Amino acid sequence: MPSPVMGESEDIPGLGQYDDFQTIDWQRDLARDRMRHRYIVKHKKDSVWDFIKAAHDAWSGWMCLFLVGLVAGTVASIVDIGTTWMTDLKYGICPGAFWLDREQCCWSSNQTAFGLDNCSQWLTWPRLVGVTDESAGGYIIAYISYVLWALSFASLAAILVRMFAPYASGGAIPEIKTILSGFIIRGFLGKWTLLVKSIGIMLSAAAGLSLGKEGPMVHITVCIGNILSYLFPKYGRNEAKKREILSAAAASGVSVAFGAPIGGVLFSLEEVSYYFPMKTLWRSFFCALIAAFVVRSIDPYGNEHSVLFYVEYSKPWIFFELLPFILLGAIGGLIGTVFIRANIWWSRYRKQSRIGQYPVTEVFVVTLINAVVSYPNPYTRMSSTRLIYLLFSQCGVANTDYLCDYNRNYTNVNGAIESAAAGTGVYTALALLFLALAFKIVMTIFTIGIKVPAGLYIPSLCMGAIVGRIVGIAMEQWAYHYPQFWAFRGECSTGDDCITPGLYAMVGAAAVLGGVTRMTVALVVIMFELTGGVRYIVPLMAAAMASKWVGDAFGKDGIYDAHIALNGYPFLDNKEEFDCTTIAADVMQPRGKAPLTVLTQDSMTLREVVSILENTKHNAFPVVISRESHFLVGCVLRRDLLLAIGSVRRKQDDISDDSLVIFNGALQGNASASSPVKLRRILDLAPITVTDHTPMETVIDMFRKLGLRHVLVTHNGRLLGIMTKKDVMLHMSHHQRTIPSVFH
Amino acid sequence: MPSPVMGESEDIPGLGQYDDFQTIDWQRDLARDRMRHRYIVKHKKDSVWDFIKAAHDAWSGWMCLFLVGLVAGTVASIVDIGTTWMTDLKYGICPGAFWLDREQCCWSSNQTAFGLDNCSQWLTWPRLVGVTDESAGGYIIAYISYVLWALSFASLAAILVRMFAPYASGGAIPEIKTILSGFIIRGFLGKWTLLVKSIGIMLSAAAGLSLGKEGPMVHITVCIGNILSYLFPKYGRNEAKKREILSAAAASGVSVAFGAPIGGVLFSLEEVSYYFPMKTLWRSFFCALIAAFVVRSIDPYGNEHSVLFYVEYSKPWIFFELLPFILLGAIGGLIGTVFIRANIWWSRYRKQSRIGQYPVTEVFVVTLINAVVSYPNPYTRMSSTRLIYLLFSQCGVANTDYLCDYNRNYTNVNGAIESAAAGTGVYTALALLFLALAFKIVMTIFTIGIKVPAGLYIPSLCMGAIVGRIVGIAMEQWAYHYPQFWAFRGECSTGDDCITPGLYAMVGAAAVLGGVTRMTVALVVIMFELTGGVRYIVPLMAAAMASKWVGDAFGKDGIYDAHIALNGYPFLDNKEEFDCTTIAADVMQPRGKAPLTVLTQDSMTLREVVSILENTKHNAFPVVISRESHFLVGCVLRRDLLLAIGSVRRKQDDISDDSLVIFNGALQGNASASSPVKLRRILDLAPITVTDHTPMETVIDMFRKLGLRHVLVTHNGRLLGIMTKKDVMLHMSHHQRTIPSVFH
Repeated sequence: MPSPVMGESEDIPGLGQYDDFQTIDWQRDLARDRMRHRYIVKHKKDSVWDFIKAAHDAWSGWMCLFLVGLVAGTVASIVDIGTTWMTDLKYGICPGAFWLDREQCCWSSNQTAFGLDNCSQWLTWPRLVGVTDESAGGYIIAYISYVLWALSFASLAAILVRMFAPYASGGAIPEIKTILSGFIIRGFLGKWTLLVKSIGIMLSAAAGLSLGKEGPMVHITVCIGNILSYLFPKYGRNEAKKREILSAAAASGVSVAFGAPIGGVLFSLEEVSYYFPMKTLWRSFFCALIAAFVVRSIDPYGNEHSVLFYVEYSKPWIFFELLPFILLGAIGGLIGTVFIRANIWWSRYRKQSRIGQYPVTEVFVVTLINAVVSYPNPYTRMSSTRLIYLLFSQCGVANTDYLCDYNRNYTNVNGAIESAAAGTGVYTALALLFLALAFKIVMTIFTIGIKVPAGLYIPSLCMGAIVGRIVGIAMEQWAYHYPQFWAFRGECSTGDDCITPGLYAMVGAAAVLGGVTRMTVALVVIMFELTGGVRYIVPLMAAAMASKWVGDAFGKDGIYDAHIALNGYPFLDNKEEFDCTTIAADVMQPRGKAPLTVLTQDSMTLREVVSILENTKHNAFPVVISRESHFLVGCVLRRDLLLAIGSVRRKQDDISDDSLVIFNGALQGNASASSPVKLRRILDLAPITVTDHTPMETVIDMFRKLGLRHVLVTHNGRLLGIMTKKDVMLHMSHHQRTIPSVFH
Repeated sequence: MPSPVMGESEDIPGLGQYDDFQTIDWQRDLARDRMRHRYIVKHKKDSVWDFIKAAHDAWSGWMCLFLVGLVAGTVASIVDIGTTWMTDLKYGICPGAFWLDREQCCWSSNQTAFGLDNCSQWLTWPRLVGVTDESAGGYIIAYISYVLWALSFASLAAILVRMFAPYASGGAIPEIKTILSGFIIRGFLGKWTLLVKSIGIMLSAAAGLSLGKEGPMVHITVCIGNILSYLFPKYGRNEAKKREILSAAAASGVSVAFGAPIGGVLFSLEEVSYYFPMKTLWRSFFCALIAAFVVRSIDPYGNEHSVLFYVEYSKPWIFFELLPFILLGAIGGLIGTVFIRANIWWSRYRKQSRIGQYPVTEVFVVTLINAVVSYPNPYTRMSSTRLIYLLFSQCGVANTDYLCDYNRNYTNVNGAIESAAAGTGVYTALALLFLALAFKIVMTIFTIGIKVPAGLYIPSLCMGAIVGRIVGIAMEQWAYHYPQFWAFRGECSTGDDCITPGLYAMVGAAAVLGGVTRMTVALVVIMFELTGGVRYIVPLMAAAMASKWVGDAFGKDGIYDAHIALNGYPFLDNKEEFDCTTIAADVMQPRGKAPLTVLTQDSMTLREVVSILENTKHNAFPVVISRESHFLVGCVLRRDLLLAIGSVRRKQDDISDDSLVIFNGALQGNASASSPVKLRRILDLAPITVTDHTPMETVIDMFRKLGLRHVLVTHNGRLLGIMTKKDVMLHMSHHQRTIPSVFH
C-alpha cells in the first residue's frame, strides 16, 4: 500500500501505472481508488463544480456500462447484418439493390408467394449469367463462385489481421481471462483490435469456415469496455477498477451474440472473470441488458421471439428419456475431450513447425478445403446457425426438409402429430448428417487457431446438434416400432409421436459445448435463453453434468484453460485446488545460501541503490532496518524507485551519488556533504507478509483472493525472502501436469 | 495453521472443533480438510478398503447433495400437500375421505361438471350443518369456522415453536446468512428445528396469515443439509467444508419453494452465501435440480407446466410501457423501504416492550385480526398464491372474476382480444384491491417477526401484484379511451387490447420483492422461472433496477441485513465498502499503554500459563521469543491449549506446576526437576500477520476473503497487538450507522 500522500498528489507522472506484460497489484490499485474517492467526497461541498464531479464519479460506473451496452449492441447488430449479407453473397446478389441480403431482397419485392428463400428479385450467380440453378452448368458455376467468395473473404480477414492487428485473431477468451486475472497486455483491447476484429469476424464467418461469432464478440465488447473506460478516470486510470468494467463488458458480449443476457452474466462469472464482486454482478446484468435491448431494437435476427433458436415442442419429455440424455452428455464429453486434445496437439505443432510462419497461406488452405468439401453436402453448405435451427426444430406440416420425410399424413393442423415410420428421406438425411459430423469435427480442429477471428460455440453446438438429432431419430424409431416396450408404454401407446428428435439435438448441442468449455450453470442458462425452453432444464442439466464428469475424467482442462497452459500465460487458476505439503520457505527466493537483495531504511547511498537497481531485475525490493538486522520495514517497487530517483535528480540540485537514501526513520549523523534523498512516499509500509511455515495452499489462496503480486516471507520477524506470483506459478506447475512455457 | 501432525492423528478429542457462538477459522478448517484428504489419497492403494474409502471421500460431496435434494424435495412436497389440505379445512371438508383437499375430493368424485372449486362431494361447513352457503346464516357459520380454524392453526404453530424449537420461528434468512459467514449457532439447524419448522409452516400458512413458505423452506433445506452432512465426515466434522453443503442446500430451498432451480442458485450466491467457490455453484445447481425434479415428480402444484404462476400473454409489450414499468419499480422500492422501516421499528419495539414476553398471545391476536378482517374481502380471503395467480393472468373467455368484467364480446376463441371499456365489476375489483393492498401492507409489517415460521416473499409479491394490476388497468383504460395518443398510436389503434394488466402485476410483484430484499439478478431469474416469461426480462429488469435504486436511496439495507443489524449478529458484510483512513494500529488490542498478553516459546512454567488462561478471556494467544524480545513465533488457541494441558496432565505423571511449557525450540538448561510440557503440535507457526501501517480496508478485505478469526499486528517484526473479527466489526460500526447490539 502506498502512503496516503500519494493518491492525492500524483506529481510524478506514471507512478502507479504498469509496464506491458506485468502483473497488477489489486490491493494497491483498490487502495489508490479509495484514496481518490475520499478526496472527491471530502471536497464535494466546496463548490458546485466539485459537487458535479462527485456526482459524476458516483455514477460513472453505470454511465460507462450504459455506453458500453449501447455501443456493443450497435456493433453487434452491424456485424450480424454484415455477416448475413456477405454469407448470401456466396450464393447470389440482389441486382436491384446489391446492399440487401436475400431475405430483405425478397421482402422488398413483396413476392412472398415464392417463399423467403427464393424470389425472382434475388439472382443466384448461375441465374445472373443466364443458367438455371438445376442444370449441371449452374451447379458448377454456383460451386465455383461459392469457393471463390469463401477464399476471398477468409484471405482478406487473414491479411487484415496480419497487417493491422495480430491480436485480433482467434477467440481471445484465454487472453481475456488472463487479462482479467490481473495481467497487462497493451494493445490487446485497443481500437485497432476492435476494428479489425469486427470486420474480420464478418469475413471469416461469411467464408463458411467452421467457426462462430461468440468468442470474437466477447473480445469486441471487452475492447469497447476498455476504450470507453478511458472516458472515466476512475476506471481508465486504475487497472483493478477497469477490470470491473471489462468483466461486465464480457457479459454483454455473450448477451449480444446469443441474445442471452443472463447467460452472459453467468458466463462472465463462471468462465471469464476473476475478481467478481456482487456490485459487478448487478452492473454486468445492466450492461448485458442494454446491449440485448439495442440488438433487439435493431433486430438483426428478424424474428419476433428475440430468441435465436426458439423451440416449441408439442410433447413433454418422458422419464425414461433421461437415460439417452445422459448418454448424449457422455458422448458430448468425449467429443469435447477429443476435440480439445486434437486442437491442442495441432496448435502446438503449428507453433513449433514452419506452418506458424505462413498464417495467411494456412487460412487459404483451410478455407479451400472447407469450401470444396462442404458445398456438396446441403447440411454443411448451409450456415451452421441455420443447420442448428433446423436440427432443433420439430417436424411439422411446414417443414419440408429430408429430415421430416416421415410416412405420415397431417389430418389436422392443430392436432397431435402421429407417430410414424421414417421415410427414405430421413435415412438419406442421416447419412448426410454422419458425413457432416465427421467433417465438422475435423475441420473445427484445424480451424480454431488459424489467424482469423474465430469462436467455437457455434461449431460445438453444431456438432452436438448433429449427434443429438441422430440419437433422437434412433429413439423415435425405436418407440415407433416397439411402442409396447415398458419404457414407452405410458406415453407412446396412444399413437402420438412421443419422442421429439429436436429435443435430443438441443441436449446434444449443450453436451458438446459443455464438453469443450466445461461450463455448467452458464451453459444451461445460455441454452435455455437461446431456445426459450424453460421446461427442458432437467434434460439439459443432466446432459451438462454427464458431459462435465466424462470430460473431466479424461482431461481436467476446458479448451480455454488448455490454451492458457499451451501459451504459458501467467494465469493463477482460481478453480483448481493445489494439493501439496510444501511451505512458503520451499518456494521463496532466494533459496539455499544465495544472498537476499534488500534495501536498508536509512543507511544506503544513492550509488548503492542505483547499483542494486542496475545489477538485479527484481520488480520489488524489501526494505529492512539495517544490513545487520533484517527486520522488515516495508517494500518499494522498482518502477516507483526509478521514477522517484529520476524526479529527485531533476528537481534537486544538491544530490550526489553519496547522498543517503532515506526510506524511513529520521536522518541521523550524516558524513556526506550532500543532502539526503527522501523517498518515504514510495515506501509501502504495509507489505503483505507470511511466515516461512505457512503452507503453500494458504499462500496461493492469498495470492488468488487478495490479488497479490508478491509476498514477503519472514521468520520470527526477520525477513527471509520474497515470493512473486511467478514463483508461485512455477512451483504449481512443477507439481502439476501442465508447465507454463513462458517461464522456461 | 496447525502443524501437519495434527490433522492425521487427532488423539485429543475435540481439537479443531468450536464452541457455541464462536467464529470459525476458515483457513484452519480448509487446511485440516486438505490434510485429511492427503492422508486418504496417500493410503488409497494400501488395500481395497482404503480405495473404497478414497472413492467415497471423493464423491461424498455429490452424494450428500444428492441426498439433500431428495429429502428436500420430499419434505417440500409434504409441506405443500399439507398446507393445501389445511387451507381447505378452513372452508369445509370431504366427508367421504377427510384426508383429501377440495381439489382431490372433487377429482375423486368425477363430477367435473361443477368445476373444480365446487362439487357435491366437498361440503363447506355451512352445508355440513344443513345451511346453504348463500344464506345469511351460512355466511356467518362459514365466517366463524374460518376464524376458528385460523386461530387454532396459528396458536398450535406458536405453541410448537415455543415448546420444542424456539429457533424455528420467522424466516431465518438473517441467521442463515450469519451462520454461512462463519458463525456457530448450535441447534439452529438441528432435527427439532427441522421438524417443528416443517409442521409449523404448514400451520401458519394454512392460518391465512400474511406470510409465505419460502424463507422457512430455505431454513428447512439448510437443516436437512446440516443433518445429512454428518453422514459424511469430510463435511460433518469440518465447519468450513460443511458450509459448502449448506450453501447448496439453501439453493434447493428456493428451488422447491418456487420451482426455480436457477433462481435458487443465484439467490444462494447473491443473497445468502458468503464463501461460494465455483465448485459450489455447480453443486448447488445439482442439488437444486434434484430437489426440483422430486417436487415435479410428486407434483404438488398439480399443473403440467411445472411453473408456479405460468403466464402467457397474447400481446408483446410496447416500448412506451417501459415508463410505467420504471414507475412501478420506483413505487416498489418505496413500498419496500417503508415496509423495512416499519417492520424494524415494530420488531425493536417488540424486543424492548412487554409484548416480546407473550409470543403466543401476540400470534393469537395477530391471527384474530387477520382472519376477521380478511374474510369479507374476496381478494384477501383467498390464499395469497391464488391471488397472485389471478392478478398475473390475462383476461380471457374462461376468466369470470370481477377483474375481467369488460364490455366486450368474445366472438372468436382463438382471435385477438379486443380493447374494451372496463365494466362496473372492474371498478368494484379496483376498490377491493385498494383495500386489500392497505390491509396486506399493515398486516405483513406486524406478521413478519411473530413467533411462527414466516417468510416474506409471497406477501411481497402479493402487494406488488396488487399495485401492478391497478396501474395496469389504469394504463389499459387510458389506451382504450385515447388510442390516438402518440405513444399508443402504433399498436393500440387496431382495436386489439394492447396493454396487458397482468404483465403490470408481474412487474409490480418483482418491484416490491426487489424493494424488500434488494436482490437483483436472482430476483429477475426467479420471476421468470416462476412465470415462464422469458420474453419479459427487459420490463422485469427495468423495474428491478428502479426499485433497487429508489430503495437504496432511502435506506441502504435490505430486510435481511436490517434484521442482522437489529439482532447484532456478527456478520461482516462483504458487499459494503468500508471507507475510512484508519490503519491497523488504530484498531488492534491492546491500545495505549495496556500490556499485551503473550506466551513465550520456551520460558514459561505451566503455572504461569495456567494463570494467564485463568486471568484472561482471549480466545487466542500470540507466542513470542521471550518476554524481553517480542518477535513473533506463532499463535495458540485457548481451546486447544486447555485441551492439550488437560490431556498432558492425564497422560504424563511427571508434570508439575513448575514444568516448563515448550511451544517451540529445543529445551535448554532446565532448573526444574519435572519434565517439560511439549506443546509444539498445537502451536500455529503460520499466523496471518499485518503491519501496523496496513490500512483497515485491506485488513477488512483479508478478514472477508480469507475468513480469518484474528490477525496479529507487527511493527518491524515485533508483535504489537492482535485484532479479532469482533474488533473489526466494532470499529466498522463506530464509523457507520448501525451498531451491532451484541457488543454493547
